[in-house]
Amino acid sequence: MNRNLVLYIAASLDGYIARDNGEIDWLKGNNDDVIVDYGYDKFYNSIDTVIMGRITYEQIINELSPDNWVYKGKKSYVATTKKYKSDSRVEYISDNVVEFIKSLKFEQGKDIWLIGGGKLIDEFIKKNIIDKYIITIIPIILGDGIPLFRGENPEIRLKLTESKTINGMCQLTYIKK
Amino acid sequence: MNRNLVLYIAASLDGYIARDNGEIDWLKGNNDDVIVDYGYDKFYNSIDTVIMGRITYEQIINELSPDNWVYKGKKSYVATTKKYKSDSRVEYISDNVVEFIKSLKFEQGKDIWLIGGGKLIDEFIKKNIIDKYIITIIPIILGDGIPLFRGENPEIRLKLTESKTINGMCQLTYIKK
Repeated sequence: MNRNLVLYIAASLDGYIARDNGEIDWLKGNNDDVIVDYGYDKFYNSIDTVIMGRITYEQIINELSPDNWVYKGKKSYVATTKKYKSDSRVEYISDNVVEFIKSLKFEQGKDIWLIGGGKLIDEFIKKNIIDKYIITIIPIILGDGIPLFRGENPEIRLKLTESKTINGMCQLTYIKK
Repeated sequence: MNRNLVLYIAASLDGYIARDNGEIDWLKGNNDDVIVDYGYDKFYNSIDTVIMGRITYEQIINELSPDNWVYKGKKSYVATTKKYKSDSRVEYISDNVVEFIKSLKFEQGKDIWLIGGGKLIDEFIKKNIIDKYIITIIPIILGDGIPLFRGENPEIRLKLTESKTINGMCQLTYIKK
Protein backbone atom coordinates (compact mmCIF):
# COMPACT_ATOMS: atom_id res chain seq x y z
CA MET A 1 0.00 0.00 0.00
CA ASN A 2 1.37 3.36 -0.99
CA ARG A 3 -1.14 5.83 0.33
CA ASN A 4 -3.19 6.37 3.46
CA LEU A 5 -6.89 7.00 3.61
CA VAL A 6 -7.12 9.77 6.19
CA LEU A 7 -10.21 10.88 8.08
CA TYR A 8 -9.49 14.51 8.96
CA ILE A 9 -12.47 15.99 10.73
CA ALA A 10 -13.71 17.98 13.72
CA ALA A 11 -16.18 16.62 16.26
CA SER A 12 -17.89 17.87 19.39
CA LEU A 13 -16.93 16.27 22.71
CA ASP A 14 -20.05 14.14 22.43
CA GLY A 15 -19.00 12.91 19.01
CA TYR A 16 -21.07 14.84 16.49
CA ILE A 17 -19.65 16.18 13.22
CA ALA A 18 -22.61 18.44 12.41
CA ARG A 19 -26.02 19.41 13.68
CA ASP A 20 -28.93 17.35 12.39
CA ASN A 21 -29.43 19.91 9.60
CA GLY A 22 -25.73 19.77 8.64
CA GLU A 23 -24.73 23.06 10.28
CA ILE A 24 -21.20 23.48 11.61
CA ASP A 25 -21.58 26.92 13.19
CA TRP A 26 -20.31 25.50 16.53
CA LEU A 27 -16.82 24.75 15.21
CA LYS A 28 -14.88 27.10 17.46
CA GLY A 29 -12.43 26.96 20.32
CA ASN A 30 -12.29 28.52 23.77
CA ASN A 31 -12.24 31.97 22.19
CA ASP A 32 -14.47 32.51 19.19
CA ASP A 33 -12.28 35.17 17.64
CA VAL A 34 -8.89 33.50 17.69
CA ILE A 35 -7.81 32.39 14.24
CA VAL A 36 -5.15 29.75 14.45
CA ASP A 37 -3.10 27.71 12.03
CA TYR A 38 -4.14 24.29 13.07
CA GLY A 39 -1.79 22.50 10.69
CA TYR A 40 -4.40 22.52 7.93
CA ASP A 41 -2.00 23.71 5.22
CA LYS A 42 0.50 21.00 6.05
CA PHE A 43 -2.22 18.38 5.98
CA TYR A 44 -3.67 19.74 2.74
CA ASN A 45 -0.27 19.48 1.09
CA SER A 46 0.03 15.87 2.19
CA ILE A 47 -3.01 14.78 0.14
CA ASP A 48 -3.69 14.88 -3.60
CA THR A 49 -7.10 13.22 -3.57
CA VAL A 50 -10.39 13.78 -1.77
CA ILE A 51 -13.45 11.57 -1.42
CA MET A 52 -16.86 12.59 -0.14
CA GLY A 53 -20.46 11.39 -0.07
CA ARG A 54 -23.38 12.80 -2.02
CA ILE A 55 -24.84 15.04 0.66
CA THR A 56 -21.48 16.66 1.39
CA TYR A 57 -20.96 17.21 -2.34
CA GLU A 58 -24.35 18.85 -2.75
CA GLN A 59 -23.77 21.03 0.31
CA ILE A 60 -20.52 22.27 -1.25
CA ILE A 61 -21.80 22.99 -4.76
CA ASN A 62 -25.19 24.38 -3.69
CA GLU A 63 -24.41 26.25 -0.48
CA LEU A 64 -20.79 26.59 0.53
CA SER A 65 -19.11 27.39 -2.76
CA PRO A 66 -21.36 27.34 -5.84
CA ASP A 67 -18.87 29.10 -8.12
CA ASN A 68 -15.47 27.64 -7.32
CA TRP A 69 -14.63 24.04 -6.63
CA VAL A 70 -13.10 24.15 -3.16
CA TYR A 71 -10.77 21.20 -3.76
CA LYS A 72 -9.36 22.51 -7.04
CA GLY A 73 -6.09 20.82 -7.88
CA LYS A 74 -7.02 17.68 -5.96
CA LYS A 75 -8.43 14.62 -7.67
CA SER A 76 -12.00 14.67 -6.35
CA TYR A 77 -14.32 11.69 -6.02
CA VAL A 78 -17.98 11.66 -5.03
CA ALA A 79 -19.58 8.42 -3.87
CA THR A 80 -23.12 8.50 -5.20
CA THR A 81 -25.66 6.39 -7.01
CA LYS A 82 -27.55 9.47 -8.13
CA LYS A 83 -27.24 10.46 -11.79
CA TYR A 84 -25.78 13.93 -12.29
CA LYS A 85 -25.01 15.81 -15.46
CA SER A 86 -21.28 15.54 -15.77
CA ASP A 87 -19.16 17.86 -13.61
CA SER A 88 -15.61 18.11 -14.91
CA ARG A 89 -14.31 18.91 -11.45
CA VAL A 90 -15.28 15.57 -9.88
CA GLU A 91 -15.60 11.91 -10.74
CA TYR A 92 -18.67 9.99 -9.56
CA ILE A 93 -18.17 6.56 -8.04
CA SER A 94 -21.44 4.73 -8.26
CA ASP A 95 -20.65 1.23 -7.17
CA ASN A 96 -18.46 -0.46 -4.61
CA VAL A 97 -16.67 2.60 -3.31
CA VAL A 98 -14.83 0.49 -0.72
CA GLU A 99 -13.16 -1.64 -3.40
CA PHE A 100 -12.47 1.48 -5.40
CA ILE A 101 -10.64 3.09 -2.48
CA LYS A 102 -8.74 -0.10 -1.76
CA SER A 103 -7.38 -0.20 -5.30
CA LEU A 104 -6.69 3.55 -5.23
CA LYS A 105 -4.44 3.02 -2.23
CA PHE A 106 -2.16 0.83 -4.31
CA GLU A 107 -1.64 3.49 -6.93
CA GLN A 108 1.18 5.98 -6.63
CA GLY A 109 0.27 9.26 -5.03
CA LYS A 110 -0.12 11.27 -1.89
CA ASP A 111 -2.65 10.49 0.80
CA ILE A 112 -6.42 10.48 0.30
CA TRP A 113 -8.67 12.69 2.42
CA LEU A 114 -11.98 11.23 3.50
CA ILE A 115 -13.97 14.45 3.91
CA GLY A 116 -17.34 13.03 4.94
CA GLY A 117 -20.17 12.89 5.50
CA GLY A 118 -21.41 10.68 8.26
CA LYS A 119 -22.75 7.89 6.09
CA LEU A 120 -19.59 7.43 4.02
CA ILE A 121 -17.40 7.60 7.14
CA ASP A 122 -19.60 4.95 8.75
CA GLU A 123 -19.26 2.67 5.72
CA PHE A 124 -15.47 3.05 5.74
CA ILE A 125 -15.13 2.47 9.49
CA LYS A 126 -17.25 -0.67 9.24
CA LYS A 127 -14.93 -1.95 6.50
CA ASN A 128 -11.91 -0.74 8.53
CA ILE A 129 -10.20 0.86 5.53
CA ILE A 130 -9.28 4.14 7.23
CA ASP A 131 -5.53 4.22 7.93
CA LYS A 132 -5.27 7.43 9.88
CA TYR A 133 -7.73 9.36 12.05
CA ILE A 134 -7.05 13.04 12.68
CA ILE A 135 -9.84 14.27 14.92
CA THR A 136 -10.11 17.75 16.36
CA ILE A 137 -12.26 17.84 19.46
CA ILE A 138 -14.27 21.05 19.77
CA PRO A 139 -15.01 22.21 23.35
CA ILE A 140 -18.77 21.75 23.24
CA ILE A 141 -21.39 19.16 24.07
CA LEU A 142 -23.60 19.59 21.03
CA GLY A 143 -26.38 17.43 22.44
CA ASP A 144 -27.55 15.98 19.15
CA GLY A 145 -26.53 15.80 15.53
CA ILE A 146 -24.82 13.64 12.95
CA PRO A 147 -22.59 11.20 14.83
CA LEU A 148 -19.00 10.45 13.84
CA PHE A 149 -19.32 6.88 15.13
CA ARG A 150 -22.64 5.08 14.73
CA GLY A 151 -22.02 1.90 16.69
CA GLU A 152 -21.98 -1.70 15.48
CA ASN A 153 -18.41 -1.13 14.37
CA PRO A 154 -15.47 -3.51 14.52
CA GLU A 155 -13.07 -3.07 17.42
CA ILE A 156 -10.07 -1.15 16.05
CA ARG A 157 -6.97 -0.73 18.20
CA LEU A 158 -5.22 2.57 17.60
CA LYS A 159 -1.93 4.21 18.40
CA LEU A 160 -1.90 7.91 19.25
CA THR A 161 0.95 9.45 17.25
CA GLU A 162 0.37 13.14 17.90
CA SER A 163 -1.74 15.43 20.04
CA LYS A 164 -1.85 19.19 20.04
CA THR A 165 -4.07 21.72 21.70
CA ILE A 166 -4.72 25.21 20.40
CA ASN A 167 -7.37 27.59 21.70
CA GLY A 168 -9.24 24.84 23.51
CA MET A 169 -9.41 22.56 20.51
CA CYS A 170 -7.52 19.31 20.82
CA GLN A 171 -6.30 17.58 17.67
CA LEU A 172 -5.57 13.87 18.05
CA THR A 173 -3.84 11.78 15.38
CA TYR A 174 -4.19 8.00 15.44
CA ILE A 175 -2.94 5.24 13.18
CA LYS A 176 -4.09 1.64 13.24
CA LYS A 177 -2.04 -0.44 15.66
CA MET B 1 -21.86 27.10 45.13
CA ASN B 2 -18.94 25.70 47.04
CA ARG B 3 -18.17 22.41 45.35
CA ASN B 4 -17.96 21.03 41.84
CA LEU B 5 -19.65 17.91 40.58
CA VAL B 6 -16.88 16.30 38.52
CA LEU B 7 -17.27 13.59 35.91
CA TYR B 8 -13.87 11.84 35.89
CA ILE B 9 -13.98 8.93 33.47
CA ALA B 10 -12.26 7.16 30.60
CA ALA B 11 -13.86 6.63 27.20
CA SER B 12 -12.93 5.04 23.91
CA LEU B 13 -12.42 7.31 20.89
CA ASP B 14 -15.93 6.39 19.79
CA GLY B 15 -17.35 7.46 23.14
CA TYR B 16 -18.01 4.28 25.10
CA ILE B 17 -17.26 3.94 28.81
CA ALA B 18 -17.61 0.14 28.93
CA ARG B 19 -18.49 -2.82 26.76
CA ASP B 20 -22.17 -3.78 26.68
CA ASN B 21 -21.51 -6.26 29.50
CA GLY B 22 -19.74 -3.61 31.60
CA GLU B 23 -16.19 -4.81 30.92
CA ILE B 24 -13.35 -2.29 30.92
CA ASP B 25 -10.54 -4.61 29.85
CA TRP B 26 -9.71 -2.24 26.96
CA LEU B 27 -8.64 0.64 29.22
CA LYS B 28 -5.02 0.83 28.14
CA GLY B 29 -2.71 3.16 26.28
CA ASN B 30 -0.35 2.75 23.33
CA ASN B 31 1.70 0.26 25.36
CA ASP B 32 -0.23 -2.20 27.49
CA ASP B 33 2.49 -2.58 30.08
CA VAL B 34 3.30 1.02 30.89
CA ILE B 35 1.98 2.04 34.29
CA VAL B 36 1.70 5.77 34.57
CA ASP B 37 0.62 8.25 37.19
CA TYR B 38 -2.19 9.93 35.38
CA GLY B 39 -2.88 12.45 38.10
CA TYR B 40 -5.34 10.12 39.79
CA ASP B 41 -3.95 10.67 43.30
CA LYS B 42 -4.17 14.42 42.93
CA PHE B 43 -7.73 14.15 41.67
CA TYR B 44 -8.69 11.70 44.41
CA ASN B 45 -7.40 14.11 47.06
CA SER B 46 -9.50 16.91 45.57
CA ILE B 47 -12.79 15.08 46.29
CA ASP B 48 -14.35 13.96 49.57
CA THR B 49 -17.60 12.55 48.17
CA VAL B 50 -18.54 10.03 45.48
CA ILE B 51 -21.85 9.31 43.80
CA MET B 52 -22.70 6.33 41.64
CA GLY B 53 -25.67 4.47 40.18
CA ARG B 54 -27.03 1.11 41.26
CA ILE B 55 -25.36 -1.05 38.61
CA THR B 56 -21.94 0.47 39.30
CA TYR B 57 -22.46 -0.08 43.03
CA GLU B 58 -23.41 -3.72 42.55
CA GLN B 59 -20.45 -4.27 40.23
CA ILE B 60 -18.14 -2.93 42.95
CA ILE B 61 -19.53 -4.89 45.90
CA ASN B 62 -20.16 -8.14 44.01
CA GLU B 63 -17.26 -8.32 41.58
CA LEU B 64 -14.53 -5.73 41.87
CA SER B 65 -14.03 -5.52 45.64
CA PRO B 66 -16.44 -7.61 47.74
CA ASP B 67 -14.43 -7.31 50.97
CA ASN B 68 -13.23 -3.72 51.12
CA TRP B 69 -15.14 -0.61 50.19
CA VAL B 70 -12.99 0.97 47.47
CA TYR B 71 -13.97 4.54 48.36
CA LYS B 72 -13.28 4.22 52.06
CA GLY B 73 -12.86 7.61 53.68
CA LYS B 74 -15.06 9.30 51.09
CA LYS B 75 -18.72 10.03 51.73
CA SER B 76 -20.35 7.58 49.34
CA TYR B 77 -23.81 7.90 47.80
CA VAL B 78 -25.67 5.38 45.67
CA ALA B 79 -28.61 6.52 43.55
CA THR B 80 -31.10 3.67 43.63
CA THR B 81 -34.75 2.93 44.16
CA LYS B 82 -33.98 -0.68 45.05
CA LYS B 83 -34.28 -1.65 48.70
CA TYR B 84 -31.05 -2.96 50.19
CA LYS B 85 -30.27 -4.11 53.69
CA SER B 86 -28.35 -1.25 55.18
CA ASP B 87 -24.68 -0.90 54.24
CA SER B 88 -22.82 1.37 56.66
CA ARG B 89 -20.32 2.30 53.97
CA VAL B 90 -22.82 4.04 51.69
CA GLU B 91 -25.98 6.09 51.79
CA TYR B 92 -28.82 5.29 49.39
CA ILE B 93 -30.52 8.16 47.62
CA SER B 94 -33.89 6.93 46.45
CA ASP B 95 -35.62 9.99 45.14
CA ASN B 96 -34.71 13.11 43.23
CA VAL B 97 -30.99 12.59 43.07
CA VAL B 98 -30.57 15.73 40.96
CA GLU B 99 -32.04 17.97 43.68
CA PHE B 100 -30.00 16.09 46.26
CA ILE B 101 -26.76 16.81 44.39
CA LYS B 102 -27.74 20.43 43.87
CA SER B 103 -28.17 20.97 47.60
CA LEU B 104 -25.01 18.99 48.34
CA LYS B 105 -23.06 21.45 46.21
CA PHE B 106 -24.01 24.26 48.56
CA GLU B 107 -22.61 22.48 51.59
CA GLN B 108 -19.02 22.96 52.62
CA GLY B 109 -16.61 20.35 51.34
CA LYS B 110 -14.31 19.21 48.61
CA ASP B 111 -15.50 18.28 45.13
CA ILE B 112 -17.92 15.45 44.35
CA TRP B 113 -16.91 12.66 41.98
CA LEU B 114 -19.58 11.35 39.64
CA ILE B 115 -18.26 7.82 39.10
CA GLY B 116 -20.97 6.45 36.81
CA GLY B 117 -22.57 4.54 35.32
CA GLY B 118 -24.00 5.51 32.00
CA LYS B 119 -27.56 6.04 33.14
CA LEU B 120 -26.72 8.37 36.06
CA ILE B 121 -24.26 10.32 33.90
CA ASP B 122 -26.97 10.72 31.25
CA GLU B 123 -29.44 12.01 33.84
CA PHE B 124 -26.92 14.55 35.15
CA ILE B 125 -25.88 15.75 31.69
CA LYS B 126 -29.53 16.24 30.72
CA LYS B 127 -30.01 18.37 33.84
CA ASN B 128 -26.66 20.10 33.14
CA ILE B 129 -25.47 19.85 36.75
CA ILE B 130 -21.94 18.60 35.97
CA ASP B 131 -19.44 21.40 36.58
CA LYS B 132 -16.27 19.76 35.33
CA TYR B 133 -15.61 17.02 32.81
CA ILE B 134 -12.27 15.17 33.02
CA ILE B 135 -12.30 12.66 30.20
CA THR B 136 -9.41 10.37 29.30
CA ILE B 137 -9.59 9.19 25.72
CA ILE B 138 -8.32 5.66 25.25
CA PRO B 139 -6.72 4.89 21.85
CA ILE B 140 -9.32 2.42 20.63
CA ILE B 141 -12.49 2.33 18.58
CA LEU B 142 -14.50 -0.05 20.74
CA GLY B 143 -17.27 -0.44 18.17
CA ASP B 144 -20.10 -0.85 20.64
CA GLY B 145 -20.84 -0.51 24.32
CA ILE B 146 -22.29 1.77 26.95
CA PRO B 147 -22.13 5.32 25.58
CA LEU B 148 -20.88 8.30 27.58
CA PHE B 149 -23.25 10.62 25.71
CA ARG B 150 -26.67 9.31 24.69
CA GLY B 151 -27.99 12.16 22.59
CA GLU B 152 -31.00 14.39 23.17
CA ASN B 153 -28.84 16.47 25.49
CA PRO B 154 -28.80 20.22 25.97
CA GLU B 155 -26.09 22.15 24.14
CA ILE B 156 -23.35 22.86 26.69
CA ARG B 157 -20.49 25.19 25.79
CA LEU B 158 -17.24 24.19 27.45
CA LYS B 159 -13.81 25.64 28.04
CA LEU B 160 -10.81 23.35 27.83
CA THR B 161 -8.64 24.12 30.87
CA GLU B 162 -6.07 21.34 30.64
CA SER B 163 -4.92 18.59 28.31
CA LYS B 164 -2.22 16.04 28.84
CA THR B 165 -1.14 12.98 26.95
CA ILE B 166 0.59 9.99 28.49
CA ASN B 167 1.19 6.68 26.75
CA GLY B 168 -1.32 7.40 24.03
CA MET B 169 -4.10 8.33 26.41
CA CYS B 170 -5.26 11.92 26.25
CA GLN B 171 -6.87 13.48 29.32
CA LEU B 172 -9.03 16.52 28.65
CA THR B 173 -10.41 18.76 31.38
CA TYR B 174 -13.37 21.02 30.64
CA ILE B 175 -15.41 23.41 32.71
CA LYS B 176 -18.70 24.98 31.74
CA LYS B 177 -18.22 28.23 29.85
